[in-house]
Amino acid sequence: MGEKKLNIEELSIWDDAKQMLRKAERDGIETAWDRLQQQSPHCKFGESGVCCRICTMGPCRISKKAPRGVCGADADVIVARNFGRFVTGGAAGHSDHGRDCIEALHAVAHGETEDYSIKDEAKLLRIAEEVGISTKGREPLDVAKDLAAEFFENYGTTKNELSFIGRVPEKRRELWANLGITPRGMDREIAEMMHRTHMGCDNDAANTMLHAARTCLADGWAGSMIATEVSDILFGTPSPRKAQVNLGVLKEDQVNILVHGHNPIVSEKILEAVNEPEMIALAREKGAAGINLAGLCCTGNELMMRNGIPMAGNHLMTELAIVTGAVELIIVDYQCIMPSLVQVGSCYHTRMVTTADKARFTGAEHVKFQMDNGMEQARKVVRMAIDRYDLRDQARVEIPQGPVDIVTGFSNEAILQALGGSLTPLIEAIKAGKVRGVVGIVGCNNPKYKHDYCNVNLTRELIKKDILVIVTGCVTTAAGKAGLLVPEAIDQAGPGLQEICGALGIPPVIHMGSCVDNARILQLCAMLANELGVDISDLPVAASSPEWYSEKAAAIGTYAVASGIYTHLGHPPNITGSELVTNLVLSGLDDLIGACFVVEQDPFKAANLIDERIKSKRTALGLAA
Amino acid sequence: MGEKKLNIEELSIWDDAKQMLRKAERDGIETAWDRLQQQSPHCKFGESGVCCRICTMGPCRISKKAPRGVCGADADVIVARNFGRFVTGGAAGHSDHGRDCIEALHAVAHGETEDYSIKDEAKLLRIAEEVGISTKGREPLDVAKDLAAEFFENYGTTKNELSFIGRVPEKRRELWANLGITPRGMDREIAEMMHRTHMGCDNDAANTMLHAARTCLADGWAGSMIATEVSDILFGTPSPRKAQVNLGVLKEDQVNILVHGHNPIVSEKILEAVNEPEMIALAREKGAAGINLAGLCCTGNELMMRNGIPMAGNHLMTELAIVTGAVELIIVDYQCIMPSLVQVGSCYHTRMVTTADKARFTGAEHVKFQMDNGMEQARKVVRMAIDRYDLRDQARVEIPQGPVDIVTGFSNEAILQALGGSLTPLIEAIKAGKVRGVVGIVGCNNPKYKHDYCNVNLTRELIKKDILVIVTGCVTTAAGKAGLLVPEAIDQAGPGLQEICGALGIPPVIHMGSCVDNARILQLCAMLANELGVDISDLPVAASSPEWYSEKAAAIGTYAVASGIYTHLGHPPNITGSELVTNLVLSGLDDLIGACFVVEQDPFKAANLIDERIKSKRTALGLAA
Repeated sequence: MGEKKLNIEELSIWDDAKQMLRKAERDGIETAWDRLQQQSPHCKFGESGVCCRICTMGPCRISKKAPRGVCGADADVIVARNFGRFVTGGAAGHSDHGRDCIEALHAVAHGETEDYSIKDEAKLLRIAEEVGISTKGREPLDVAKDLAAEFFENYGTTKNELSFIGRVPEKRRELWANLGITPRGMDREIAEMMHRTHMGCDNDAANTMLHAARTCLADGWAGSMIATEVSDILFGTPSPRKAQVNLGVLKEDQVNILVHGHNPIVSEKILEAVNEPEMIALAREKGAAGINLAGLCCTGNELMMRNGIPMAGNHLMTELAIVTGAVELIIVDYQCIMPSLVQVGSCYHTRMVTTADKARFTGAEHVKFQMDNGMEQARKVVRMAIDRYDLRDQARVEIPQGPVDIVTGFSNEAILQALGGSLTPLIEAIKAGKVRGVVGIVGCNNPKYKHDYCNVNLTRELIKKDILVIVTGCVTTAAGKAGLLVPEAIDQAGPGLQEICGALGIPPVIHMGSCVDNARILQLCAMLANELGVDISDLPVAASSPEWYSEKAAAIGTYAVASGIYTHLGHPPNITGSELVTNLVLSGLDDLIGACFVVEQDPFKAANLIDERIKSKRTALGLAA
Repeated sequence: MGEKKLNIEELSIWDDAKQMLRKAERDGIETAWDRLQQQSPHCKFGESGVCCRICTMGPCRISKKAPRGVCGADADVIVARNFGRFVTGGAAGHSDHGRDCIEALHAVAHGETEDYSIKDEAKLLRIAEEVGISTKGREPLDVAKDLAAEFFENYGTTKNELSFIGRVPEKRRELWANLGITPRGMDREIAEMMHRTHMGCDNDAANTMLHAARTCLADGWAGSMIATEVSDILFGTPSPRKAQVNLGVLKEDQVNILVHGHNPIVSEKILEAVNEPEMIALAREKGAAGINLAGLCCTGNELMMRNGIPMAGNHLMTELAIVTGAVELIIVDYQCIMPSLVQVGSCYHTRMVTTADKARFTGAEHVKFQMDNGMEQARKVVRMAIDRYDLRDQARVEIPQGPVDIVTGFSNEAILQALGGSLTPLIEAIKAGKVRGVVGIVGCNNPKYKHDYCNVNLTRELIKKDILVIVTGCVTTAAGKAGLLVPEAIDQAGPGLQEICGALGIPPVIHMGSCVDNARILQLCAMLANELGVDISDLPVAASSPEWYSEKAAAIGTYAVASGIYTHLGHPPNITGSELVTNLVLSGLDDLIGACFVVEQDPFKAANLIDERIKSKRTALGLAA
């Protein structure tokens, strides 16, 4: 536990979070906030990126007294190498998730599984045609074989071109080619980044940073984009539907199961299993009124987007969800899952179940999900949850009340449909200044900042300025809890946005999915640019990750910038120890690539900075600012 | 410069090194030893592996006061993640080098270059047949197309099996399969390791360590092995030849060019260019007696193995080679190239030239080598070197005297030939106890230890005990300078080794190449095991890297252990902060995988430990210890 008592009022803007933090304190549960206190102050060398551990001549730390590491690397080189590996961790996460999706598609196509199928045949055929696979008169599964093979090639060395490169505006492609950063294979860029950052390879900070951009572009336009498109093909393309958010979605009289992680492959089967009559009957036998499935983090987003499954909370709510004492079982796939969940769970009756060999947790139970046993394992896990209902201590249960309604499911396909089949109405609204711009607010929570304060306030400020906001990942839950993901929220928007969203019957803040689904935002930007015949960097758009914490968020920010999107971060990555790298990222890239990062912790100031950028882009396009 | 004066006598066992360290001091040149002094003491958190920087909730450092990071990860998880990424950097280096070799083979096969060709057609056909490519009645270039395609598949996702898996003894393959560590694609294992080590993925230290083993196995049996085999096909399979080592190979009256790095693709062209009459004439016009090409590090090993090009020095000699004042130009490809070489060069007239886009050095001149311009660029670089001869200040030149003779070129093919076509004579010698065992001593230098003291003394001690030593990489130069790489060195060997090597006319220490060529040692071990019908872990063999520093060395050690080879290290990687990981590596693996690491700084004690292990393996095989 932390040395001094945490001031709970200052930790989160949410009542459900504060209520559970008080309960955690009473129950003697350690949370991320306690551990942050123990870990503070952070190492200054690590925080500024000038600590190097890539060989055993070190570790080295750059200071005035010691301006170079043992090998001779200076702060610029060390910071760039660390940043390169940092975003590569993120790009690898997204793209390995994408690979798992392709493997599922491959298994379906080759008849190697009965547990998965093609849910959106029309999308399968459309995507196949888009990437050059003939579909005429062919069986969908036959097309799927070719599509899986085509997508696998995005991870290899021989193809040297991404399947979705055709989506990128031509001017952007030329710019990438001129800079030598056109992404080749996904895994190749990852491996090359690891190679470049070995001792004695790439020792030019700017050159290393360019390869970081290339690696992240492969993530955005291949790894993540393939993850999204294949998930839609396998599990259905999201369309608008209602759902609910916050800890109030847990049910006192039901078996509560939480899914956590990122990939829908496991959670979709859990959803099927909890709806099976035998399972519900079994739960009733145990005295429960039923089985309640809720999501956390991005697996939660995936289930919510496609099935309207409620969302219990975002990153900083994952421990607190267990603190309710009402969760029988939490089943995870991978990424962003705090290992502390095992410990928190063991303080109650909550069992944690892992499903992927690549993401095991000491102390959790491992139920390996494979292509050919998904349903069987899902049933096993649901039975495990039901069995634990007996163990719940109702005296220790406390579930915050009042879940909030939201509307979710805005895939690009759904947006196009809402717009009547073409982007023209949106473009006209942008031209007319009714929608002054579009900003994607994405990413995580970070206990260094008051939970969701920036996520919510930035969103509110932007819609006031007639800027349409798109959310994914953990910002979804923040905006949802703030009541911004419903059509009624147009009350809080500027007059232009109010008019447009009102006419379309959509919220002023649009939920587009999980964090791999930021690829949907890339695609939307590309469609807008292509429609207007300009580059993405000419559009009145921006991205923001106000409370980010993960390598994936840094990778997303980097591919956004390299794709031409001005990107706000609430705090910088660990690069401030190099003036060269910091300047490159905060301004130099603007000349090179037409976009850059901007760092601002205050959401109101950040909103103004983004607004200024949108004004300048509107002016350059000849539109009223 | 360091705060207190370095005690030069204690820094290296070599006269050439000490002479240049004294000159460096006089000339005001900072070296790795100075910077090591500035960087000492090292950060204890970094050294023990318990510092985590993989997300911005941190950085975190594990201590008694703070036993878990903000996410909840403990020392075990953090150490395992750091180790996983560490060896992945090494595996990526080797395997990206291998990829470049395949790209060269592909370019030759498809007629996309006139600068490269197939030098060893017999090996091309033999390897093609080995990996299942039909060669009967086919043009070699046609076969090469298929072989390049086959090797590229080792980097992809769909094949899921390495081309050279057939070389691995069956028992070993079963063991890998049972542990779930059979390597799939090279890049895939790298990407998965980066994914697993993202926050909230793999949080079970042992599980992470197993994937580290899998990633390194892909390096050893694919990335590195392909690099070696394709280099042989393109540039010729090494055969025994004479060469010389130490700084005395530089010539006072000639244009001196040094090649440094790892891949022969650039250096082989430089070698051709310096031998062209026009180039030699041009050098003479400038008043030089000729052009002298010498090697450093592993590119030096590659040229020496195949062409007898002299070796100026190993890792810690690279700065000191420039301190001679006699080097016009140093041309590098990638890996292990101290960025300080730019600064050291700028204190003399030495130009540094980089050749690979993935390894640029701020302040160096970039001459990009591509498949279709190798000769043209090589000539350009050699002309640059000649042009700089004028700038040399002969008053500042000081070249240590007395290069040492060596014999190099022991590929497995050459060893088989020396043995009369089969391994039987070696196996008989092992059975008879004349060759009690075989130990590969490989790897680097590290300024934390007296330069080459351990490399040389361990080698000497082992051959005294009738243990045949194989060297690669930077240990080559150490053994060579110690006079151990010549047939006459049998004087220093035990009686059995003396008899066998004497009869064969070979040195008791065999030079097998560069650090990717450790794959040759793997293959030799596999051939011995297969011949005897046992697993590699049953053989009286060991590996050692006494003075290692690089991520590649850690990767090599890991694939050696995972292949069943007991492996000595002079110092541990940064894992000592986790008892679990340390115990796993130093003993637990022995039960799991039939081999483990052993750490011992003293070369005499290390020799005894290795000897004990060899005794136990001999006894288990029913041989006299």
